[in-house]
Amino acid sequence: MSDSKTQWFEEHYPTVKAKLGMEVEQWLHSSKSEFQKIDVFESKGFGRVMLIDDLVMLTEKDEFVYHEMIAHIPVNVHPNPQRVLVIGAGDGGTLRELLKHPEIKSLDLVEIDKMVADVSKQYFPDVACGYDDDRVECFWEDGVAYVNNCDKEYDIIVIDSTDPFGPGEGLFTTEFYQRCHDLLSNNGILVNQAESPQWTPNYVKGIHSKLSSIFPKFSMYQAFIPTYPSGHWLFGFASKNLDPVKDQKANRWKEKNIDTKYYNPEIHAACFALPNFVYDLFESND
Amino acid sequence: MSDSKTQWFEEHYPTVKAKLGMEVEQWLHSSKSEFQKIDVFESKGFGRVMLIDDLVMLTEKDEFVYHEMIAHIPVNVHPNPQRVLVIGAGDGGTLRELLKHPEIKSLDLVEIDKMVADVSKQYFPDVACGYDDDRVECFWEDGVAYVNNCDKEYDIIVIDSTDPFGPGEGLFTTEFYQRCHDLLSNNGILVNQAESPQWTPNYVKGIHSKLSSIFPKFSMYQAFIPTYPSGHWLFGFASKNLDPVKDQKANRWKEKNIDTKYYNPEIHAACFALPNFVYDLFESND
Repeated sequence: MSDSKTQWFEEHYPTVKAKLGMEVEQWLHSSKSEFQKIDVFESKGFGRVMLIDDLVMLTEKDEFVYHEMIAHIPVNVHPNPQRVLVIGAGDGGTLRELLKHPEIKSLDLVEIDKMVADVSKQYFPDVACGYDDDRVECFWEDGVAYVNNCDKEYDIIVIDSTDPFGPGEGLFTTEFYQRCHDLLSNNGILVNQAESPQWTPNYVKGIHSKLSSIFPKFSMYQAFIPTYPSGHWLFGFASKNLDPVKDQKANRWKEKNIDTKYYNPEIHAACFALPNFVYDLFESND
Repeated sequence: MSDSKTQWFEEHYPTVKAKLGMEVEQWLHSSKSEFQKIDVFESKGFGRVMLIDDLVMLTEKDEFVYHEMIAHIPVNVHPNPQRVLVIGAGDGGTLRELLKHPEIKSLDLVEIDKMVADVSKQYFPDVACGYDDDRVECFWEDGVAYVNNCDKEYDIIVIDSTDPFGPGEGLFTTEFYQRCHDLLSNNGILVNQAESPQWTPNYVKGIHSKLSSIFPKFSMYQAFIPTYPSGHWLFGFASKNLDPVKDQKANRWKEKNIDTKYYNPEIHAACFALPNFVYDLFESND
């Protein structure tokens, strides 16, 4: 399978005492920013891989799943998605997908760590391809500070964070979610990356409990992302009044002829149907 | 994360040059049958794990996904599912789920390797719990030979095989699928485990191409199984005339009050909505 010279990168999954290993072709980059460690390697099976603090952020092979699903779901529900705020997402993949929609007139990106964007531009040009778009304005600061000082109104807020510890921790608090709620217009939608129901159920419970207490409507949806823990990934969909399935604009999507590898209108409706154990998790109080 | 004394089991995924590791608490069983190597260990994060030829067949933590999804989908489409044939599935998990349906009057199990059933009964009593049911008859022989010599008629055939190499290879051929087709009644349904679209797309293409050329209707559906390669798993649904979604018997299911951890009527409809790259795979000819 592999000889003694094979170099492996291994991500450890402490909650299940497991790990995913990928064979390394060549290490391309290692740096340490003010906030975190950033690495890039060429893998043998997944193209280039970006790590933050030794956790897989994206691989060229499957990044499309995450980025399409966090971007197109909210845009294809909102009746007039003009002003979008993205928090985190320095790699640029979420920008790339959002910018495919001509209705979006302004896209504010708030990323605490400019080095993530710089590394992505250098090593993942097909991911970080939206930074030069005129609609994008970048704010290199903490998302929590940004929303606390912000007086703009947004139609959609996308929280494309790292995990609920380290620099990303503040992006999973009730106070932060409440502030996002207050910045949204009447039809406003917030989506966020919401971890794995199979391997990190406590994170999922926390996110569900907080967002469903603040927003009139809250659901979660799922996608297959093999290089994230368990491959079973959730996203939160919080809104002031729109329903993620009933208010889907499937015809508008079809007219745009946007090329996607994962997302389609049937997946849009289907991804909100969750397994029983996930609903049980939402209702559990242990 | 783990000290030098940590014992790991690692399954290698050659198509993506990757591996999944699980920490071993204790090795419980190793044997070699006429056909394959069988191992059982107690893991630290997934309960007990059964391996065949060093590949994960099931873990106590997530076996419910596979077994519920391969069993309840066809039963909940067929109008009168009385006679069921299961090929493979020696661990008993598929039997356990099928036997929850009172309409099923006879369940023939064909497993080439009786040792798999014996090991499962000893180490996985909650999985191999259906063998004593009066409706079950076991045939310890090759599934290909069984169908070639069979003169019964079945309402549902479930092919719960290992991968398309080694002892399971014959269960992925056109001849075998044709013979299964011929054993099915007019409303007959065949389902099979159909590998991963992300990490073993060529297997998926082969299965899709063969079954769709034999059956009037063929679809695939998906489920999240973290301990199978990529966690993104497909099943084939082949039928003589029934539609897997339109002919779902959701009300009949609800009346039965069957307890499931994954399956529900919304998942039933949703799991047939596939990502674009999977549809592209079906249509590709390389």
